[in-house]
This record gives sequence, structure tokens and C-alpha cells, in this order.
Amino acid sequence: MRIYDLPASPNARRVRIFLAEKGLEIPMVPVNMMRGENQTEDYLKKNSLGRMPLLEFDDGTTISESIAICRYIEGTHPSPALMGSGALESATIDMWQRRMEFEFILPIISIFRHTAEMWKGRFVQIPEVAEQERIAVKARMEWLNKELDGKQFIAGGDYTVADITAQCAFVMAKAALDIRIPEDLENLNGWWARVTSRPSARA
Amino acid sequence: MRIYDLPASPNARRVRIFLAEKGLEIPMVPVNMMRGENQTEDYLKKNSLGRMPLLEFDDGTTISESIAICRYIEGTHPSPALMGSGALESATIDMWQRRMEFEFILPIISIFRHTAEMWKGRFVQIPEVAEQERIAVKARMEWLNKELDGKQFIAGGDYTVADITAQCAFVMAKAALDIRIPEDLENLNGWWARVTSRPSARA
Repeated sequence: MRIYDLPASPNARRVRIFLAEKGLEIPMVPVNMMRGENQTEDYLKKNSLGRMPLLEFDDGTTISESIAICRYIEGTHPSPALMGSGALESATIDMWQRRMEFEFILPIISIFRHTAEMWKGRFVQIPEVAEQERIAVKARMEWLNKELDGKQFIAGGDYTVADITAQCAFVMAKAALDIRIPEDLENLNGWWARVTSRPSARA
Repeated sequence: MRIYDLPASPNARRVRIFLAEKGLEIPMVPVNMMRGENQTEDYLKKNSLGRMPLLEFDDGTTISESIAICRYIEGTHPSPALMGSGALESATIDMWQRRMEFEFILPIISIFRHTAEMWKGRFVQIPEVAEQERIAVKARMEWLNKELDGKQFIAGGDYTVADITAQCAFVMAKAALDIRIPEDLENLNGWWARVTSRPSARA
């Protein structure tokens, strides 16, 4: 079993943090997107969308999509639970995971794609999209700050995959776009300190 | 238990089809977004993002996000399985569900928001985004047509939540944007005939 990894990608990082929280190691194969290694005939046979991360089993079976890979790992290594147990808890964590994905990871990746030098010529960049997404991300940080009132972690008392999704979004926002959590958002800053002090944060 | 519904929304339709496939009925409460019923103080207490669908329990607990609602229903009513059983099958179906979401539902909703009369003034419309998304959706239909080669349904031999996501995307594409599956995409047309002939398609 191996994982085709894109080290700088927030989606690939989600899987690495998930594995670190489980105390698991799976060999990582870095794929260089800038050199087109994800568009070779061989790689497209593994993932016809040419994306990373990708989990590959020894028999050639593959699973793409970071959260689907996490779901497989959760199913085979349930402890510590990062996706909940029981119908209501699992659904609640899934809701929060998806909110973090749609409100943060997607717009933050979108800002990057619409502005970054490395995407010029590979993608039709529309600067106005990035401007609108920046406004939306700022508003969503204020929303999340309120939602964190009285909670240690995003889905409640325990660290879950929803925190992983959010922290990977904020890592990219800070590192690639210089979008930082405003100082006056106390709950969000408290949460950020809690998640980034976990050893898994450096995975 | 009740579901706050937005009848024309592809996301709300996903839940209704999921319930129909399970043979379940949950009372539906339509929410009129055009009249701002989703932005009232009362509704925002239920879902601070003001979105539909939303599952509400009698004790006031709520779950938003169509797929999280489906996950709750799957957990409490496992048969017929629409999200797989076992780690590998569940992860594979999740992968396909997410691909249908990111490659179809999201761009199709985006085209609608960036062009529809009803979104004028509620949202910064950028027509160039819609143009790019139309090109992407067309290319993705060709991709999905290839992926369906030799398969009855999107994740393989059985109808799953991945089919539900895709069919709701294509319903919206056709009804709201006049984007239709090109006639020469035989596998995709065959799949479309199979899913739309199910009684649940009219849910």
C-alpha cells in the first residue's frame, strides 16, 4: 500500500495528519505536478482525474479523494475515532467536515488558483473571483469564531477530521496567501493554538 | 423529525431521492428562500449558514449538509445500502460521490448563481466564471462517459448515493441551464435512462 502525495497540497496534508493522529505510516510517493508527473499515461491509469492524494493497494486498486482515503483508514483502524461513532455523531462530524471544506478549503484553493504564478497558463485566472473569495473567507472566519464559542474543537469536545480539514485550509491561507486569523477572533485563535500544538500538525 | 426543504435545490433533491430509495418518509417543511425565510432569526438558530436541506430532531438537534443527512439515514436504516458496506466499498462509493459533487454539482450550481436572474443583487455575478464552468462540465461529461464503460452505475454494479448526486446535478443542468448530455455519449445516456426510470427519480 502506498499514497501518491503532493507535499504542498492541503488535501494531501489532510491525509498525512489523519494518519499521524492514528499513529500509522503508509509509504508516500511524491508526485511532481509542475513536471506533469500526474498527467502521465501511467498515473492517469491510477487516477483518471490526475489528482493527489491517491491511495494504491498492492493489487492495483486505488482510492482518490482525501476524505474517502480517510474513511478507508477509519474503517480499518477505528481508534482513535476521528469520524465519530454511531449514526448521529458520524453525521454531525461529517456536517462539520463538509462545512470546513466548502467554507474554507474550496475558496482558499480557488484564491490560489486564480492568482498564483504557477497556475498562469494552466488555468483561466479571473482575479475578481479571488477578490470575492477573500471577502467570503474573512466573513466565514467570523462565523466560525462564533460557532467555536464554548467548544474545544470544531465538532464539539473532541479533535476530529473536521479540525483537520479546517487547519489544512488555514495553513494554506497563511503560507500561500498571507490570509491570517484576525487577532480579535479569540475562539478561533484559541482553537488554532490547540490544533497546531498537536504533534500531527507537522505531518 | 422533519426536513427543511428547498424544493428546486439539487442538494435538497439528493436527500428526497435517498429517502425514496430507502422507502422512508420524513415530513418536509418547504422554506421560501426568495422571501428570506432562511435568513430569519429562528431559522438561523437551526442552521447558522441559512441553508437547506436541514434535518431537525424533536429535541431541536439539527444536521445540515445533504450528505451528512444521508449518512445519518444510512446509519439508522442500512438497507438497501446506498453508501456501501465495509471499509473499501464505503470509501470507493465516497470517492465517487465526491467526484460527482466536485465535478458536476458544484460547477453546475456555480453557473446558475453566476447567471440566473434570481441571484442578481444577492451575489456578485461574474459571467466569465459561468463560461469556464460550462467548458469544464462538458469535458467532465466526456470523462464520466468513459468511466461508465462496462458499468451499470457510477460506483460499479449497484445504484448508490454517487448516482443520486450525479443525477441531481444533471437534472439541474437540464432544467435550469439547458445543458444536456450530448447524444454521442452512449454510456452516460444509458446510465441517465437507468437512473431516471427509477420511481425515486421523481422524489
